[in-house]
Amino acid sequence: MKEKSIQDYYPDELSYCYGCGRLNEHGHHIQSFWDGDETIPHFTPEFYHIAIPGYVYGGLLASLIDCHGTGTAALVSYRAEEREPGTEPPFRFVTASLQVDYLKPTPLGPELELRGKILEQKGRKVISEITVSVKGEITVRGKVVAVQMPDDFSGEKNK
Amino acid sequence: MKEKSIQDYYPDELSYCYGCGRLNEHGHHIQSFWDGDETIPHFTPEFYHIAIPGYVYGGLLASLIDCHGTGTAALVSYRAEEREPGTEPPFRFVTASLQVDYLKPTPLGPELELRGKILEQKGRKVISEITVSVKGEITVRGKVVAVQMPDDFSGEKNK
Repeated sequence: MKEKSIQDYYPDELSYCYGCGRLNEHGHHIQSFWDGDETIPHFTPEFYHIAIPGYVYGGLLASLIDCHGTGTAALVSYRAEEREPGTEPPFRFVTASLQVDYLKPTPLGPELELRGKILEQKGRKVISEITVSVKGEITVRGKVVAVQMPDDFSGEKNK
Repeated sequence: MKEKSIQDYYPDELSYCYGCGRLNEHGHHIQSFWDGDETIPHFTPEFYHIAIPGYVYGGLLASLIDCHGTGTAALVSYRAEEREPGTEPPFRFVTASLQVDYLKPTPLGPELELRGKILEQKGRKVISEITVSVKGEITVRGKVVAVQMPDDFSGEKNK
């Protein structure tokens, strides 16, 4: 049986994110998993996700880091409470801030190797560092400050 | 005659960016213009660019800020040399780093109002602040460090 990602456990109504929602037909479907004490997603860009010819579009890289940051925050929160993802109450994070340093161009074609590490977890906030690498070489380094979605967040359209 | 954006002047071989390349059929086609001493793009997200229901996906907002940051850097560079866009040699920037602070959720539906201001221009580097607002309220604040593409940058695929 295929291992489930943290995004597979998000409640349906919160699963339409363009980056990582399993129910968004147009989206990237980023999926985040544990790998020891780090977190990883699997992602291969499409041919049209280009910046300058031969290299991955920086906005896509920022998007991957963003969604993997909130996914990592959820994974960490369940583990901190020694609970399995999918148990109640659910954890769902939003991004408060995102820092992305493009160290060198990221070649377009191969699967991207992203890794998340926790820098800090305090209260409703989780800060993670996310790196992107290709063939073992880190090309992008990001930092995501994720905060747990407010309990009173209705998610109503255009409120 | 419709005013040309700075992206309309990018050389063809550098016009496939997923965010702002006019020749990328799948992309966002972000366009950046002068508005006095500030720069503006026009952009309305698609219905599927959602994060949580009713709000714009943060990765898209980061993408808009990214491309408008490099577009702004090019606009500024031509103006600093008192040259018209399209004159030789062309200016084309890449993003060195991107900081995005999500101050509040950005409602999905209305056209987004982005504004770029120059914070610093020095040598081959331009730092700009880009805000996103909806109906006059700033929802996201970003900072882009753009650097002029190296002269020896070949842009060869998968190099």
